[in-house]
Amino acid sequence: MRAAVFHGPGEIGIEERPTPEVDGPREAVVRVTHTAVCGSDLWFYRGDSERDPGSRVGHEPMGVVEAVGPAVRSVDPGDRVFAPFVISCGRCEFCRKGLHTSCVNGDSWTGAQAEYVHVSEADGTLVRVPDRYADDESALESLLPLTDVMGTGHHAAVSAGVGEGDTAVVIGDGAVGLCAVLAARRLGAERIVAVGHHEDRLEQAVSFGATETVAKRGEAAVERVQELTYGGATHVLECVGAASAMDTAIAVCRPGGTVGYVGVPHGVTDEGLDVLSLFSDNITLRGGVAPVRAYAEELMDDVLAGTLDPSPVFTKTVDLDGVPAGYRAMDEREDVKVMIKP
Amino acid sequence: MRAAVFHGPGEIGIEERPTPEVDGPREAVVRVTHTAVCGSDLWFYRGDSERDPGSRVGHEPMGVVEAVGPAVRSVDPGDRVFAPFVISCGRCEFCRKGLHTSCVNGDSWTGAQAEYVHVSEADGTLVRVPDRYADDESALESLLPLTDVMGTGHHAAVSAGVGEGDTAVVIGDGAVGLCAVLAARRLGAERIVAVGHHEDRLEQAVSFGATETVAKRGEAAVERVQELTYGGATHVLECVGAASAMDTAIAVCRPGGTVGYVGVPHGVTDEGLDVLSLFSDNITLRGGVAPVRAYAEELMDDVLAGTLDPSPVFTKTVDLDGVPAGYRAMDEREDVKVMIKP
Repeated sequence: MRAAVFHGPGEIGIEERPTPEVDGPREAVVRVTHTAVCGSDLWFYRGDSERDPGSRVGHEPMGVVEAVGPAVRSVDPGDRVFAPFVISCGRCEFCRKGLHTSCVNGDSWTGAQAEYVHVSEADGTLVRVPDRYADDESALESLLPLTDVMGTGHHAAVSAGVGEGDTAVVIGDGAVGLCAVLAARRLGAERIVAVGHHEDRLEQAVSFGATETVAKRGEAAVERVQELTYGGATHVLECVGAASAMDTAIAVCRPGGTVGYVGVPHGVTDEGLDVLSLFSDNITLRGGVAPVRAYAEELMDDVLAGTLDPSPVFTKTVDLDGVPAGYRAMDEREDVKVMIKP
Repeated sequence: MRAAVFHGPGEIGIEERPTPEVDGPREAVVRVTHTAVCGSDLWFYRGDSERDPGSRVGHEPMGVVEAVGPAVRSVDPGDRVFAPFVISCGRCEFCRKGLHTSCVNGDSWTGAQAEYVHVSEADGTLVRVPDRYADDESALESLLPLTDVMGTGHHAAVSAGVGEGDTAVVIGDGAVGLCAVLAARRLGAERIVAVGHHEDRLEQAVSFGATETVAKRGEAAVERVQELTYGGATHVLECVGAASAMDTAIAVCRPGGTVGYVGVPHGVTDEGLDVLSLFSDNITLRGGVAPVRAYAEELMDDVLAGTLDPSPVFTKTVDLDGVPAGYRAMDEREDVKVMIKP
């Protein structure tokens, strides 16, 4: 089969690799029909994080089950499925608590930007799309963000405690930030202030439900949000994962409020977190790597009911040969997020 | 009147100062009958934080109302009262939310280690002791910790989300840590693991409700707590306020759990907080400077009912002349906390 492979910063190739097979009783193999390039893929692409040259890439798979082991109960060959960005068992304490990212049997994907992908724990990981929608291309494209960015944006909103009638501030206008706007609206927020740097993305935020946008950085952004929220918002969603964005999030949070954060905190350890502001204002810091699997069913219900559609985060679609160009487009910020149909 | 005054690191004097008077309509003057030396007083005493030489000290007043302004409604001269470590108005958004430490009209004490103390916002700050207990010395000594350490320990427990049947880990065996043990037990925790360095204080923790104690530091403490809790506790109370204690708290917190912290985070900004552990394990960091005023009534109810008694945190009692010796005793860790009867 063909698969996307990392060769070094800026270099993604498409190569022949062995087609995966089912070995163990709980395993499955999925023929990938849809997947995506993630903002987090840009870290190794840019050389900001380590990755072994020659390793396969991608972690947002959707496809059709090709084969399953004898112990698999929840899916059969031929089923349309999607899966979150980590593999989880569904049986352990943490999976039962909805914290699949702390699964004690958890695993990483071998690389979902490929024709086939191997799943070590099929029952705990794969989400079956109801048969009625299994070949509905529009529904599938709207479900695909549930593999990562939509579940992550939702985790930001849940972590920040967004509820009916609330005012929420979303820091970041990337795919996760945009999905966080959708999630905040879905949870009943009345005012959603989207903070970002790109006018076109902030327009998308408005069509997703943002009531106000702030296209500023640093101190200017803080001042404007403080003004709009009469001194800060009780619910702030940090959807960037950088020290500067975390600082902004804390600075616009009202005393006693909560910063829900879902971006891997790059640079925060080096530059230090503003713990003294958290302390003096009793601001809660809640969130982390999103347990997307826990949210899949409820978000899928809304997508299939037509009340939730994150698919506009995909601004380009490529086939497997187009994956290197897809990385380039996201790296150069030409596209918000690239869909891949292998 | 006579008052304790800071002259420089290690130097506390007792001096004549003008007796305060009521000027504004919402003010009061209280004749101080009981107060205390706080662990946080040791920062300036040790030269770890800045303080102007010549400034008065102390922030845990209990006494009898001497005079009130015409707008004061909740107390009258002659009433026995106590007050938390900051002055709050009781009217603003944050006081109404129970976050008195963010009061927009908030103020610091002019110095409660004195014969009299001035209160700029009497109604929002002073807590009236019911007449029946107004001269009950035993009740008063049990109520005195509600001015600071008991409310702070309670805030750690509330922030950490301690509830019925829970396992809680308390980091720190100072007065706040000991009160946090009391608070966790009061909130229904079934197992309370107290972590500290002093055998005698950990014995006190046991008599306050700790079911296990760990007299170790750093990695050894983490290993032992992990062992006792089968991989970490969901509710961790950080009651020290130092980078190393915060690291321990995060390290013993179970994925998906909460670290409730109430110690001013000394050194955390310099040394950096372990944000990556918080992120990867979805550990919530909640707490801050304790809104002790918000908890005063409910804690007082239990103290007066005889089900809560934090007074054993006082290991020495002095008069005003004994204040310098009281600071020394706490600085040298001879005493947990010193009560002052001016």
